[in-house]
Amino acid sequence: MFSFSPTARVRPSPFFDATVAEGLVAANVYNRMIMPTSYGNPEAEYWRLINGVSQWDVGVERQVQLKGPDAARLAQILSPRDLSTCAVGQGKYVPLCNHRGTIINDPILLKLADDLYWLSIADSDIWFWAGAIAAERGLNVEVSEPDVSPMALQGPKAEDVVAHVLGDWVRGLKYFWFRETEIQGIPVAVQRSGWSKQGGFEIYLKDGTKGTQLWNIFKEAGQPWGIGPGAPATAERTESGLVSVGGDTDDQTNPFEVRLGKYVDLDVADDVVGIKALRRIKAEGVKRHQLGIILDGDAPAPMGALPEAILRNGAVVGKMTNCVWSPRMQANIGYALISSAVPPGETVTVQRSAGPVTGRLVELPFL
Amino acid sequence: MFSFSPTARVRPSPFFDATVAEGLVAANVYNRMIMPTSYGNPEAEYWRLINGVSQWDVGVERQVQLKGPDAARLAQILSPRDLSTCAVGQGKYVPLCNHRGTIINDPILLKLADDLYWLSIADSDIWFWAGAIAAERGLNVEVSEPDVSPMALQGPKAEDVVAHVLGDWVRGLKYFWFRETEIQGIPVAVQRSGWSKQGGFEIYLKDGTKGTQLWNIFKEAGQPWGIGPGAPATAERTESGLVSVGGDTDDQTNPFEVRLGKYVDLDVADDVVGIKALRRIKAEGVKRHQLGIILDGDAPAPMGALPEAILRNGAVVGKMTNCVWSPRMQANIGYALISSAVPPGETVTVQRSAGPVTGRLVELPFL
Repeated sequence: MFSFSPTARVRPSPFFDATVAEGLVAANVYNRMIMPTSYGNPEAEYWRLINGVSQWDVGVERQVQLKGPDAARLAQILSPRDLSTCAVGQGKYVPLCNHRGTIINDPILLKLADDLYWLSIADSDIWFWAGAIAAERGLNVEVSEPDVSPMALQGPKAEDVVAHVLGDWVRGLKYFWFRETEIQGIPVAVQRSGWSKQGGFEIYLKDGTKGTQLWNIFKEAGQPWGIGPGAPATAERTESGLVSVGGDTDDQTNPFEVRLGKYVDLDVADDVVGIKALRRIKAEGVKRHQLGIILDGDAPAPMGALPEAILRNGAVVGKMTNCVWSPRMQANIGYALISSAVPPGETVTVQRSAGPVTGRLVELPFL
Repeated sequence: MFSFSPTARVRPSPFFDATVAEGLVAANVYNRMIMPTSYGNPEAEYWRLINGVSQWDVGVERQVQLKGPDAARLAQILSPRDLSTCAVGQGKYVPLCNHRGTIINDPILLKLADDLYWLSIADSDIWFWAGAIAAERGLNVEVSEPDVSPMALQGPKAEDVVAHVLGDWVRGLKYFWFRETEIQGIPVAVQRSGWSKQGGFEIYLKDGTKGTQLWNIFKEAGQPWGIGPGAPATAERTESGLVSVGGDTDDQTNPFEVRLGKYVDLDVADDVVGIKALRRIKAEGVKRHQLGIILDGDAPAPMGALPEAILRNGAVVGKMTNCVWSPRMQANIGYALISSAVPPGETVTVQRSAGPVTGRLVELPFL
């Protein structure tokens, strides 16, 4: 474990000062920004997410803004998911692929207007990607990074907190739908969303000078529900089967391999990036799939240098791409990206840095 | 200052174990990998670079490999610098620009063969960029990330160490030229290069399983010259006027603004990305330039939340994009990205987080 400080190349988010005031002790880097990961008590932070309400600085979920007459056209060109029915105010989870059908990001696409979209991205440079495609195709659209930074309220009590601040209308928001509004004069978009399966909202701050103010509004409003700081939790997201593109995937992974085939519409237009490759991959048969793996042993084991090879009968059949102690399952669990010939229920061996460990393959999600 | 650990999304380099054995205490993230930044004694590490020889894990300088019949064509399409005279075995410093002429990376391009190039990149995703351009133009070239990780030997005694390991032929290598060879069976490319102005070499390791072995060969060979671990040094690179793309630049910065106009050939072919925008920018007149700034005061001041606004006569005229204590100049120095109407010699005010500080603008490099 090493220390690091913000630099000119690795920016803080607008909520950074607030997270420091909350007692931030660990962070990582995501989209070249500081991503808070712990406030010193991972177990309390986990159970707060499972049972209560947790407040997250996820300003690192940057927005790739598409604006202009060809914004809708570019959004569809980038998305192997059909967007023709996407309404203003609606969001959709979209696996972005390159021309070979490899998944390169999995943003939430938000349609703010007919000529204005945001891609709320995971950790890879979609400004470069979208900008290159737009320019090479001569589209009339501006690709930019707006001053927009999400903060998440996650957990079963998140809705009560957000409704307390914004009104009961938020209870009627469908998953990934959003509304633009103001909170004490601070411009935001409020979406039912968030990188957990415990329910909640993301508040997209549209004025980077108001981060501390917005943080404290929700911090104060959440006191009756025991709100506290947290961060996307590896244990919870693994239990819940959420995909981390770039962590669980490699430079050959297509959406079908990691349970995202339902977000690919093979009959979108031929000019969609990667669609021809995806049709071919589907027709030829998908070679790997993503399963859960429950490791033997009842003590938390370090994550190790991932990925780690998975063997069956002495032969490498895949790799373990993440591994974490599950407080609810009381076991080390992870994801296997593994030959499609190896079904759930099989027992395999993982070549961990500390030595081989036996594990059992299961369907995802775990919980 | 926060702690962080490697994750599945943020990889260690092949030299990681060796750097831990050397006593690594601080790191950052660069190209989604761990970049060692300190071994606990920044001052000793600085003077070792200035007076001796410093050993760096710069495996984060990833290679974007262009391979195939159209590799040379793609390299030129990506590069506003004329590559027609680039020989096999030669490297060239190349500012890459987007279609608007904004600088997006500044790799060393290495020509390994007529159909094989590496771009040894700074911190931005040129795989996406090059892959998008290649696919959209239908070029017959594979864009990939090979198993290649640079280690640097930097400082006035670096040449003696590298010659001790590889032979006196390395003394004849011209700047950015390289040769592929083996060291005790380990495949490498050896280049006169490195992100300092103190002289030295980069050893491109071509087998990621041999990082510790290669590290220790140079560590042992360098003992007579007092070799020790280090990292690219903000103080030295600032004194020397080296550019950090993404730190010193913003999403509007063109190469002319940051002293890289000499690497732009405006008469390259029209199909080079960004060249039309660069011609227009040059014709219309460049609006900003990059100067050094020497701040008043004789005590090291924290870097602060950069960039910080620069004022002259009460009006904002630009921003300070980095700031560091210079041991040789005994002053806090930084870069100003500032209106071209403000010349060197002027006195300005920087709006630092701790309050306004007066500074004097100078030409770069400082030393």
